Amino acid sequence: MKTIRVELPGVSYPIYIGPGSLASHLPALVNELAPELVVVVSNETVHRLYPNRPAEVLRASSHRVETCLVPDGERFKTLATLGTIYERLMELQANRRSVLLAFGGGVVGDMAGFAAATFMRGIPVIQLPTTLVAQVDSSVGGKTGVNLPAGKNAVGSFKQPAGVVIDPTLLATLPGRELRAGLFELIKHGIIHDPALFDFLEANRPALTAQDWDFWEEAVARSCQVKARVVQQDPHEKGLRAILNFGHSLGHLIETHTGYEACLHGEAVGIGMLFAAFVSREWGLLQAAEFERIRALLEPLATTVVLPPLDEAGFAAHLMHDKKAERGTLRFIVLEGLGRAAIREGTTPAELWPFFQRFEREFPGLLRVEGG
Amino acid sequence: MKTIRVELPGVSYPIYIGPGSLASHLPALVNELAPELVVVVSNETVHRLYPNRPAEVLRASSHRVETCLVPDGERFKTLATLGTIYERLMELQANRRSVLLAFGGGVVGDMAGFAAATFMRGIPVIQLPTTLVAQVDSSVGGKTGVNLPAGKNAVGSFKQPAGVVIDPTLLATLPGRELRAGLFELIKHGIIHDPALFDFLEANRPALTAQDWDFWEEAVARSCQVKARVVQQDPHEKGLRAILNFGHSLGHLIETHTGYEACLHGEAVGIGMLFAAFVSREWGLLQAAEFERIRALLEPLATTVVLPPLDEAGFAAHLMHDKKAERGTLRFIVLEGLGRAAIREGTTPAELWPFFQRFEREFPGLLRVEGG
Repeated sequence: MKTIRVELPGVSYPIYIGPGSLASHLPALVNELAPELVVVVSNETVHRLYPNRPAEVLRASSHRVETCLVPDGERFKTLATLGTIYERLMELQANRRSVLLAFGGGVVGDMAGFAAATFMRGIPVIQLPTTLVAQVDSSVGGKTGVNLPAGKNAVGSFKQPAGVVIDPTLLATLPGRELRAGLFELIKHGIIHDPALFDFLEANRPALTAQDWDFWEEAVARSCQVKARVVQQDPHEKGLRAILNFGHSLGHLIETHTGYEACLHGEAVGIGMLFAAFVSREWGLLQAAEFERIRALLEPLATTVVLPPLDEAGFAAHLMHDKKAERGTLRFIVLEGLGRAAIREGTTPAELWPFFQRFEREFPGLLRVEGG
Repeated sequence: MKTIRVELPGVSYPIYIGPGSLASHLPALVNELAPELVVVVSNETVHRLYPNRPAEVLRASSHRVETCLVPDGERFKTLATLGTIYERLMELQANRRSVLLAFGGGVVGDMAGFAAATFMRGIPVIQLPTTLVAQVDSSVGGKTGVNLPAGKNAVGSFKQPAGVVIDPTLLATLPGRELRAGLFELIKHGIIHDPALFDFLEANRPALTAQDWDFWEEAVARSCQVKARVVQQDPHEKGLRAILNFGHSLGHLIETHTGYEACLHGEAVGIGMLFAAFVSREWGLLQAAEFERIRALLEPLATTVVLPPLDEAGFAAHLMHDKKAERGTLRFIVLEGLGRAAIREGTTPAELWPFFQRFEREFPGLLRVEGG
């Protein structure tokens, strides 16, 4: 079992990582909050796979535990679904002495987190992530929110959880494609901030798609450690935290231009990461050998994304819709070496467009533009 | 012109109060934020009375200024209306370099504030309150949110504005009933925390319903000063801030039991204040002479509220739905003297019920229960 403490101004919380951590660590975490009511927010899929798991774990502590289920899928991460969570909380007579448990992937975590941030102006939430993306990334750091029709995560807030309990054995039921999507985020943390994590993943390549829980405990813990370190230095994304968006400029474009239908978020970010590494190499910031190591780890995990026709104007428009866009330029995350991401303010779509065209030609197995 | 500074941990903002303050103080406040886009959130009534007022004031500073109108009325303070604000912001391509101006009463201020708290995880908002309730109360302190069908302000967050600019001459167009509703909140600030403000209002009783802008500048500024002082000591309502809820227990009951149809929030709170003072006197906390002064100031401003039939169970149920309710008891705000409110934890509905029955008998001009 691994424990990481996230220390932020005015708030501090633990992350427990290990097989069986729900049973061993959740009850004490809940007891500390002394809630009158515990509401498990989950989705139908997770609820079917692990029926009442958090409630069972809490049985001995005699809390009143209720369930609030939301439909499974990113397309339900909406204000409307959020409204159903609020209604359910009212129906259960939840109040400021209630606690939410977010038991699911990133969608459940983001929505339950945002509901907790805003219900009665704020109640505690404990994150119990069940997917790899959520375990290594979204459950840590406090970003919560929902999508608008015209903007992913366009509505949200920063809400630090009261704790995170991660059981990697829950990954046993995760579809292979979703596991791979999570791997991109895990690898990202190595690439941007922790060369030793990158080495570790590179050295354990066969374990990346196997059920070796010692490996996963180690990998997830190291990844959370990177995320925690970055978040601690910049809780509200005023600066450094932006490096977590490595790969997200092109990733975002892929998602919006395909209407979020062609691939999972992690897959889009995976291709975006290789693109950002490619641009970094072309700009002379990243050595060719380092680029090759990144390529060798990422490429076998990726699947081809086919984009609808896209010209330079469309490319620019998609990049500029990113909410980090400022004054006609964007904040592009580059690598100044393996494990050393940097923020490049003032990048223009026009600068990136030729690289995008070359990238598409050099990596047709990753990205293809129809009619391009 | 009066200036008050609200100093909170990590954030500080000015409140400017005086005739013409929009023209004299809004432009500099907006310029400091260097926004790419300014969105005026307002309602149809205010927009008709003061067409494009904030935009006109900002004309010289050449900002891009757009408008987002919401329907007028508490019943539109919903997630659905909030959704239309978000959609409008997306349509205007608002981003983190956008600023909202909340130009209206409490409903506009609460919704624009919550939209600002959550759009792109937080953008600045400047409050430009146009009603007395908003000028003396809701625009200061950062409480924002919307109602759920089953709970007023059940969803929201704390979002401190970047500044508040109050022009009391905007009250010239406020219906008399709404002015009186606001007066209750103003008087409340004197009763709970500032005996000198109470004296001032008592000494200027004729001015309370007249258009004497010197009086209003002074009264509004003193009221904001009380609110700011309380909020500074307790930004997130962990303790002291609860005294601002003086009168709100019964006020809340009146509003929910009548489905928010019988009276304005301020009117309900006005009756609730007199009830809380009455209970305080009965408990021997408040002198009879002080109670009489409070009664003499409040009673002439009030109108009779007729409640549907209500038994003790219904009384308890309405009180306990209050979101400050904890473990079957409520946090009742009492007076330990004029200008000295105190929090009485652990009050039960059963304790208050006999006082409610007596209050109704003694003040039939304020409150009557049908069939009671």
